Amino acid sequence: VSGARDLLQSKNRRIRQQFLAEGPQAVSAALAADLVSQVFVVDEFDELAQAAHRAGIRRSIVTEAGLKAMCETVSPQGIVAVCQIPEVSLEEVLTPLTGFVVVCVGVSDPGNLGTIIRTAAAAGARAVITTTGSADLWSGKVVRSTVGTFAAVAVTGPLDEDTVLTALSSRSITTVAAAGQSEVSIFGAEIAAATAGPHAWLLGSEAHGLSDQTLNQVDVVATIPMAANVESLNVASAAAICLYASRLRHVVA
Amino acid sequence: VSGARDLLQSKNRRIRQQFLAEGPQAVSAALAADLVSQVFVVDEFDELAQAAHRAGIRRSIVTEAGLKAMCETVSPQGIVAVCQIPEVSLEEVLTPLTGFVVVCVGVSDPGNLGTIIRTAAAAGARAVITTTGSADLWSGKVVRSTVGTFAAVAVTGPLDEDTVLTALSSRSITTVAAAGQSEVSIFGAEIAAATAGPHAWLLGSEAHGLSDQTLNQVDVVATIPMAANVESLNVASAAAICLYASRLRHVVA
Repeated sequence: VSGARDLLQSKNRRIRQQFLAEGPQAVSAALAADLVSQVFVVDEFDELAQAAHRAGIRRSIVTEAGLKAMCETVSPQGIVAVCQIPEVSLEEVLTPLTGFVVVCVGVSDPGNLGTIIRTAAAAGARAVITTTGSADLWSGKVVRSTVGTFAAVAVTGPLDEDTVLTALSSRSITTVAAAGQSEVSIFGAEIAAATAGPHAWLLGSEAHGLSDQTLNQVDVVATIPMAANVESLNVASAAAICLYASRLRHVVA
Repeated sequence: VSGARDLLQSKNRRIRQQFLAEGPQAVSAALAADLVSQVFVVDEFDELAQAAHRAGIRRSIVTEAGLKAMCETVSPQGIVAVCQIPEVSLEEVLTPLTGFVVVCVGVSDPGNLGTIIRTAAAAGARAVITTTGSADLWSGKVVRSTVGTFAAVAVTGPLDEDTVLTALSSRSITTVAAAGQSEVSIFGAEIAAATAGPHAWLLGSEAHGLSDQTLNQVDVVATIPMAANVESLNVASAAAICLYASRLRHVVA
């Protein structure tokens, strides 16, 4: 139990390359993706835990209090699993890239990051890449916010921003920054052309957007058109609009 | 102070038709919309509070602890305002309707509801309407999640769902339900035609989506196309995709 509880801390997740899936939906998704190494369950007749047991996965019966101690949520719904972090490299997701990826540059709110992963999976993005300063991809809140889609799209990070930008440009992957300051609409002809081939959407932090340094390095800066009395969108809402614009060009609906 | 603190409760907000704006961004938006009746501030030299004072609004200096007591957030950033709820009727927003509205049918998560209001304001929607079972439009979490856009778009609710659906159909406003079960894509020709005139997007609850009873009453049920291994989108992400599809048809970008 204490080994599982250690995974509430980012440092331990990184060292052990493991994370916790809380609740039936997340555990079920982790089992389907073959990531589970151990399940903790309150009820020995729990169906998911039995399935895990039949698959040769270690199953431990714990008390409700024991389960809560290894959870961030108040109500873990009876089951928690220790899972392997599915490792993917930048090389793997970018070589070759036929569609699009999203790069979260310092998206620090875990709910937003998890929601972006969920949308990226739905939109058919190749990967979600985070840079330093983004929320930990495998924290409880991020995993919960993906609503079981954490294994439905490749995710990798945190990576150094320059490393990511260099990897993209060296492969001739077009970089499009979604930012408020541009005259270029994400729905216009220029972006239609820029996103016709392999491309990456860059999204900035909730508080500060993308830095001037980042904006100077991307191929195009584009804006989601907004009513005059509104300054910005939530970053996960912006991601939904950008990624679905790409999906319409790259995936048969 | 206790009069302000009472507004932390939904019942009192309804009776007094007032709500609390926490922090400079929300207070500033409320001042601009002429909704503020009183400000509470920690620092007597606070610029916003001075502006309010010059505008004839009652200003009270309170301690940090006093301010915290009337807030939901841990850090209210020095200022809280008691504001009038901007009343709009269904009649006002629908007669006549030239663009589009969004109807939140039991969207119970306040963060999602606030984010939908923010997106609706940005997309140029005429209004956000909530039905019974949705989060309270004027709770602290909803107001915070709008990031100062609570007065940038008309909002009204909670209203009885049948009342809303009847009001829409009696005015020949096309109703489009966003739901997972349809063969009709929100990006297809049928929805392009359905949303060419005045229309309403209906979005369901996070846990259950829209009920069969609702789906039977709308003009069209449409689906946001998704990758095969993903079941659903976050409701605020879905709203962003639907409302921006409408914006592209109704607003010059």
